[in-house]
Amino acid sequence: MRTPTLEFWFEFASTYSYIAAEEIESKADAAGVEIIWRPFLLGPIFAGQGWRDSPFNLYPAKGAYMWRDMERLCRRKAIAWRKPSVFPRNGLLAARVATALDAAEQLPAFVRAVYRANFSSDLEISEPSVVKDILRSLSLDEEMIFGRANDDAAKRLLRERTDEAKRRGVFGAPSFFAKDELFWGGDRLEQALEALKE
Amino acid sequence: MRTPTLEFWFEFASTYSYIAAEEIESKADAAGVEIIWRPFLLGPIFAGQGWRDSPFNLYPAKGAYMWRDMERLCRRKAIAWRKPSVFPRNGLLAARVATALDAAEQLPAFVRAVYRANFSSDLEISEPSVVKDILRSLSLDEEMIFGRANDDAAKRLLRERTDEAKRRGVFGAPSFFAKDELFWGGDRLEQALEALKE
Repeated sequence: MRTPTLEFWFEFASTYSYIAAEEIESKADAAGVEIIWRPFLLGPIFAGQGWRDSPFNLYPAKGAYMWRDMERLCRRKAIAWRKPSVFPRNGLLAARVATALDAAEQLPAFVRAVYRANFSSDLEISEPSVVKDILRSLSLDEEMIFGRANDDAAKRLLRERTDEAKRRGVFGAPSFFAKDELFWGGDRLEQALEALKE
Repeated sequence: MRTPTLEFWFEFASTYSYIAAEEIESKADAAGVEIIWRPFLLGPIFAGQGWRDSPFNLYPAKGAYMWRDMERLCRRKAIAWRKPSVFPRNGLLAARVATALDAAEQLPAFVRAVYRANFSSDLEISEPSVVKDILRSLSLDEEMIFGRANDDAAKRLLRERTDEAKRRGVFGAPSFFAKDELFWGGDRLEQALEALKE
């Protein structure tokens, strides 16, 4: 039998995706499930809904709640957390780099490091120097990978994946697909993993 | 020591509030917590966010997901479910009746019966006859209660509660308050109950 796979669709600007990125590997391991990491961009999807900013900025009550909820969830789950001084940060560069890394074994560590830079160290993840530091800390060749990330192939692949997300009904992040069935939000991670057993 | 209390704020048009209404009593009982039932109206709160309809209708991808999620959740939790032929149904009348019942011991049974009418029997809960049938089935005097529900005092109290919800940061339903701390969504019910123990 093939190892069951869970698709994990994430956006680097997304607070709740950060928690999912921190939790998904141990939970997937425990369930005997392989993760397919899928960076994508929420911007074009939100734009299609008429939003030019994060809904957490557009709807202040929803935003105020999200910040409080993140603080509570991270404390509960022992995940490092500092409210970023800029929100949302532009995740395009990090998403291109993640797309260029694709199935590399360092991809999960890269993803987590970018999220921690954004949501624990309050660093500007749209700055090339920040992303290069992360690549170097993972013993990756930052110039070579930046070359690939800025190549048309990586840009096109990221656009295609964002289009794919939209086509398959994704409207927020994190999103998971289990056997092509969509689960939205970190609160559905367990259910998505269970769906693979059915 | 006083029994800890959890405020449960619900809107009769809200699908996820239905699940919360079905689950909250056994969970609160197990936690030794008393529930304060707070019917309110999402309409004025959504209108304040610029929405003239349910976000599940305004944002079709979000809506399609919600219907699938409800189907899955209700199956998982063994809660009766039929996708209503009209959504959202106007919950004003039922909310006025619930407000008129206020702390009556039949209030929880009334709330559940209205939700089941809407989301399991596909009945029009804005129809007085439907709500009167529910009151009669609970051995309540439907004419007397309708008199109270249509009285200015009940109308004013419901408006005040909706204003209170908005003032305290409520932006969706179900919402819970534990020690004045807001928790949004059925997925946070357990955390809200736990917060009362801290």
